Amino acid sequence: MTQKPSIPKGTRDFGTPEMARRNYIFSTVKDVFRLYGFQQIETPAMENLSTLMGKYGEEGDKLLFRILNSGDYLKDIPSTELVSSNLNRLTPKLAEKGLRYDLTVPFARFVVQNRSSLQLPFKRFQIQPVWRADRPQKGRYREFYQCDADIIGSESLWNETELLQMIDEVFCRFKIRVAVKVNNRKILAGIAGVLGLEDKITDITVAIDKIDKIGLENVCAELASKGVSEEAVERLRPLLLLTGTNEEKLNFIRNYLKDSPEGLKGVDELEFAVRETLKLGMANQVEIDFSLARGLNYYTGIIIEVKALDVEIGSISGGGRYDNLTGVFGMPGISGVGISFGADRIYDVLEKLELYPQNIGESAEVMFVNFGEAEALESLRIIKELRKQGISAELYPDSSKMKKQMGYADSRKIPFVAIIGEEELKEKIVVLKNMLTGDQHRVSPEELITYLKTN
Amino acid sequence: MTQKPSIPKGTRDFGTPEMARRNYIFSTVKDVFRLYGFQQIETPAMENLSTLMGKYGEEGDKLLFRILNSGDYLKDIPSTELVSSNLNRLTPKLAEKGLRYDLTVPFARFVVQNRSSLQLPFKRFQIQPVWRADRPQKGRYREFYQCDADIIGSESLWNETELLQMIDEVFCRFKIRVAVKVNNRKILAGIAGVLGLEDKITDITVAIDKIDKIGLENVCAELASKGVSEEAVERLRPLLLLTGTNEEKLNFIRNYLKDSPEGLKGVDELEFAVRETLKLGMANQVEIDFSLARGLNYYTGIIIEVKALDVEIGSISGGGRYDNLTGVFGMPGISGVGISFGADRIYDVLEKLELYPQNIGESAEVMFVNFGEAEALESLRIIKELRKQGISAELYPDSSKMKKQMGYADSRKIPFVAIIGEEELKEKIVVLKNMLTGDQHRVSPEELITYLKTN
Repeated sequence: MTQKPSIPKGTRDFGTPEMARRNYIFSTVKDVFRLYGFQQIETPAMENLSTLMGKYGEEGDKLLFRILNSGDYLKDIPSTELVSSNLNRLTPKLAEKGLRYDLTVPFARFVVQNRSSLQLPFKRFQIQPVWRADRPQKGRYREFYQCDADIIGSESLWNETELLQMIDEVFCRFKIRVAVKVNNRKILAGIAGVLGLEDKITDITVAIDKIDKIGLENVCAELASKGVSEEAVERLRPLLLLTGTNEEKLNFIRNYLKDSPEGLKGVDELEFAVRETLKLGMANQVEIDFSLARGLNYYTGIIIEVKALDVEIGSISGGGRYDNLTGVFGMPGISGVGISFGADRIYDVLEKLELYPQNIGESAEVMFVNFGEAEALESLRIIKELRKQGISAELYPDSSKMKKQMGYADSRKIPFVAIIGEEELKEKIVVLKNMLTGDQHRVSPEELITYLKTN
Repeated sequence: MTQKPSIPKGTRDFGTPEMARRNYIFSTVKDVFRLYGFQQIETPAMENLSTLMGKYGEEGDKLLFRILNSGDYLKDIPSTELVSSNLNRLTPKLAEKGLRYDLTVPFARFVVQNRSSLQLPFKRFQIQPVWRADRPQKGRYREFYQCDADIIGSESLWNETELLQMIDEVFCRFKIRVAVKVNNRKILAGIAGVLGLEDKITDITVAIDKIDKIGLENVCAELASKGVSEEAVERLRPLLLLTGTNEEKLNFIRNYLKDSPEGLKGVDELEFAVRETLKLGMANQVEIDFSLARGLNYYTGIIIEVKALDVEIGSISGGGRYDNLTGVFGMPGISGVGISFGADRIYDVLEKLELYPQNIGESAEVMFVNFGEAEALESLRIIKELRKQGISAELYPDSSKMKKQMGYADSRKIPFVAIIGEEELKEKIVVLKNMLTGDQHRVSPEELITYLKTN
């Protein structure tokens, strides 16, 4: 038991500096969510595996963390089955529960379970950890937070506009310059349609989604390897090469999809969302990008992805519209549109661009040096008054050497140190030291409160 | 897949009204923690089972939720072992990780793992869920939040004073009247010592801890059944019957323990903590109670328990001092003192006493009715200005019937509804309806902002 303890690979401790930064991120996002009328829910970490299985594809099923049943979990399993090594049969008997893999499936389950009391439309946000048994690597963790906001039960395109506005507001607050890329799933379907490749829509979108990473020629080669005819690839080329303003892109695609009613519906939807959003004003650019696909099988309308402009990193936020959130749980017809903020990536971007505000350290604003019983008591009396005024304050608990106490304040980045020694106690004054400048003032307790309230 | 989904027993969904109340509780506690100079950390939900096992007693080990190993978890287990039904041998091979059972052991692990970078004393708080495979029953859940604050690396009794002050502040903010009961583990050891029953200290404290529940005679009977002599029981009686002021209790116990140096040390410690705390002023009563034991094996100094005065419910907060937080991980000599707030019980008390503030609903402050495209756009323009002023606002997304839209605002408890119909759009005014009083005003957009900012 005396070996140095560790934590499971792919998981993290968050110490006080990390937590201060994470709290800054979450509270910024939450503030904006609430400003837009979203309300918070939470679901349990554990879900029944019947809720989770089959929702994330075969690969996803494998990445679920399963909870070993409690008690005598072997009781009802015949020995023959145990030694059969048929994990597909055995696992469901050993484990009935699993850890949340994302926030969307639990939300869908929540909606179905609470349908009788739920008023639609419903604007919910949810910020909770999820767990995936992925191979850990740089920037990929087995436990990480998701940060989702969705509006369900309304097909109105104003929801799209609201989400785009909200994304803009969040990144303005972070001071991260971003490009908000948008597309529409119906446009992708339309493209596949006019090329006569309805059955290859997944291959096509997977391939063109990679254009930023692998380049045009490799995308064309991949398409060919998937059995897309040379002629179809040639007809796709101008789309993949498309540049210009949003208006030019919309004109081009409207003509390109003129024979696809579904595609044209996608163009109308996208045009409405972009146009009305721009009328309301965006600080960041909205950019139509027909190569944007993101989890195609899921989305049915708008597709949104946010890229940081000043840092090389994947998307830091993404989302879209889906038409059948709860169908898999037997409740059809619930449409929704949502956005998810990538807290870990936003954390890295803020760090790289040095955008964290100065004063999020969450340490006390002032520490009182401890010179012994009488001085400590007097210090705590003043501390009590400071706290009443909303100023965080603490007494160094031990009457240790001055150097040690100052070192503590320093390492905690406490901006002010207050000193009440024997003499100050007699004179009923406090020496206040600014730890940044080194300046010292002799002030009365009342002056101290006024000073700290205004500094 | 179309059966109505459910959640694992003992777990809970928190919908928007519950979350608003829970957020009120957590943010109140966090605000006070920060005011007192505590800083937040978080640890992973999963810990290695080697970290968790043996820390909570045999019963606790059984209540740990274990994570089935990923991949082919049977690969290295011989068939003979699989069919042996020797769970004690098999389980550690099937599951190497478990879910956090409390926040204390992960915190101890955190301290040891980060010892080189950790500045002591360290004031940390931690608010995270824990999981226990307990039999679910009313008020007992398999997933629940703990809410802990500890000061480690300092033996100063001022820390005790700070914690007692902090408890007072938390419950003042909640407006819950409480009795803060205190004892000291050294006093309990001293009592066992003067009775010559050092080996029976656990039996004695377990028995006398029950006095509130089972009464004096049953406690004496239980002591006798544990082999405590009649004479010893008789010597205990006056202690168990002890009433009076804290001063009278301290005088009595000082005399009672006059031959126990350890006991007298406990009396000194308790007296200091109570005396200095009262000098600083407490809104709630501090009450010395020598029958208070709480997890005896863990605590070594002060023991604290908080009872609500106006509701029959168990303790709603508790804690104490421990001398060896990290010894089990090979790092001796770290003393600490901490307090844990019971969020679920505080939730129930606030509900029973109807102490939740009015305005924690977290819904938007104002909803704009949607009359169609032009009106919706104008509404969103005003909404954007409102949000800039920190006023949460939303547009009903669909231009549904008025009744439906008003019903939504009503069920969300949105206090104000703003109406911009065709006429209002032309006149550039807004009709603002107070949903509580039914009052309506015709105002300009500027007046609307001013009005909502001040209401």
